[in-house]
Amino acid sequence: MRLATRDNGTPDGELLVISSDGVRGASGGERWPNLLAAIADWASAAPELYALSREVEGGGEAIEPSTLRAPLPRSWQWLDGSAFATHGRLMQVAFGTDPIDTAKPLMYQGLSDRFYGPLEPVPFRSEEDGIDFEGEFGVVVDAVPMGVTPEEALGHIKLIVQINDWSLRALAVPEMKTGFGWIHAKPACSMAPFAITPDALGDRWREGRVHLDLAIDWNGVRFGNANGGEMQFGFHELVAHAAATRDLVAGTIIGSGTVANDNYPEVGSSCISERRAIEIISTRQAATAFLSFGDRVRMEAVTPDGETPFGAIDQVAVRRG
Amino acid sequence: MRLATRDNGTPDGELLVISSDGVRGASGGERWPNLLAAIADWASAAPELYALSREVEGGGEAIEPSTLRAPLPRSWQWLDGSAFATHGRLMQVAFGTDPIDTAKPLMYQGLSDRFYGPLEPVPFRSEEDGIDFEGEFGVVVDAVPMGVTPEEALGHIKLIVQINDWSLRALAVPEMKTGFGWIHAKPACSMAPFAITPDALGDRWREGRVHLDLAIDWNGVRFGNANGGEMQFGFHELVAHAAATRDLVAGTIIGSGTVANDNYPEVGSSCISERRAIEIISTRQAATAFLSFGDRVRMEAVTPDGETPFGAIDQVAVRRG
Repeated sequence: MRLATRDNGTPDGELLVISSDGVRGASGGERWPNLLAAIADWASAAPELYALSREVEGGGEAIEPSTLRAPLPRSWQWLDGSAFATHGRLMQVAFGTDPIDTAKPLMYQGLSDRFYGPLEPVPFRSEEDGIDFEGEFGVVVDAVPMGVTPEEALGHIKLIVQINDWSLRALAVPEMKTGFGWIHAKPACSMAPFAITPDALGDRWREGRVHLDLAIDWNGVRFGNANGGEMQFGFHELVAHAAATRDLVAGTIIGSGTVANDNYPEVGSSCISERRAIEIISTRQAATAFLSFGDRVRMEAVTPDGETPFGAIDQVAVRRG
Repeated sequence: MRLATRDNGTPDGELLVISSDGVRGASGGERWPNLLAAIADWASAAPELYALSREVEGGGEAIEPSTLRAPLPRSWQWLDGSAFATHGRLMQVAFGTDPIDTAKPLMYQGLSDRFYGPLEPVPFRSEEDGIDFEGEFGVVVDAVPMGVTPEEALGHIKLIVQINDWSLRALAVPEMKTGFGWIHAKPACSMAPFAITPDALGDRWREGRVHLDLAIDWNGVRFGNANGGEMQFGFHELVAHAAATRDLVAGTIIGSGTVANDNYPEVGSSCISERRAIEIISTRQAATAFLSFGDRVRMEAVTPDGETPFGAIDQVAVRRG
């Protein structure tokens, strides 16, 4: 099942059930007005939305892509992991920081009151901040009790999403050095238009990982195409980590961190900072600049059959007016 | 003006306007059903709630303290500073960490989907985690645009609250060392029952600081009575810091960090970790243990006239069932 959120002037938008070809949809109506409400009562919502998803295959209405917002335009909690070991190693080079202990998952809490829609221009204050993208996958859980095991956590993963975790690299290291995590370096993220249930991925969802290539284009040029399957920790382990000392509220979004593969010379990277690290390793100097205003970033996970289950993020970075 | 939230079975509860003696109240009704809705439209809500607050002085209904939840039982964002330099210095001793650069405010993003009510037992998984309290003040803002100045930020501070930022000390240092901030070490906070407007504090609210003593009792024994006025950065500077690269959603709560004073030998501390640091400094060894299950913590800011504008947090730490 594939879900989306249409702009209707409200903060949470209108929940849509989307056809498998991504072009037709039906509203969740008064019963399931938005996705945040549905995920809070998923046991009731899921069967009704699945029923609607079968109806929409032969009916529904044409969906105008420009009306789609992030599937969750806001949620109560966003916890982003950094579960790709290759990304972690390269970021230490990019940042010039000491190695981080990765026996446990790495995770920070980011702002969740706003996720930009897939086509929305994204405003930043200055190019000097080192504007970077981070291509990721994420999962949305229902209510998860404190102390859940990874095995139990797997059953709480109700939806999968595709995220651009916008990052301001010039501001990152000073914040890391405080140990308090990032406030300035992590503004709001963006989401691809469709949230999908794990079953919609078939065997591309296994071991709590999304085994799909994430194609990333920067100003129309292919930048990376790494596969999501190479996570050091699966999403179920990230959820259990997040829930060690807290109950997770329904609608919590858990991110994978930047998708990265060991064979990065072939597949490229999912953020500029990583490419700069690779340049530092090979030539001692970073050559690729961060984003300029007006630059366009497209991110789209693609199946071997050429399907794009999450749709595409396709956005321009702009100067805040 | 003083506001509270009464349990009505909904996640956000029912907004109450409270009399100046704290014992009578009136519901915000259908127009202002809860505080999160009111803060999102504060320009409209404030005059109507002020009018109600004048009515409630001579009327209203008796309020049962056990029905009161946190003024904001949940919100979209909780950003906690660490603005008391004395606390910072002592925590470096407690944690055995390197000095942190404090030219800018320190701040982390914590979980905001749940704030415990003032009398609610607070569940933890294990005493081994080093359960500690942190007595703080906080402010609630309306929508704050990115890039606001501290002077402009002052006008966005609509409410002041009193917070216990529960902390798990045994889990804190490994998380700090990752640079990602705290997930495990910072479970949900608690709030005193009343959120108050800055004008309700008179000259006790000045320079963006709460000039009140915060009395803290642990199992009935006075533990600390530090004054909130000694912040290195005022709340307006914390708000501006938080908004440097993000718009702040209405309802964002910004915390002061643990209240601490240079004359701690006289006034004591607002968390156990600080007292342990003082013990380490004087005897090389921490003697005071962290909380045991069943321990009671009371926190109450008191004016020189003996008034308690926020009411009291009075809670027991319990084993998660």
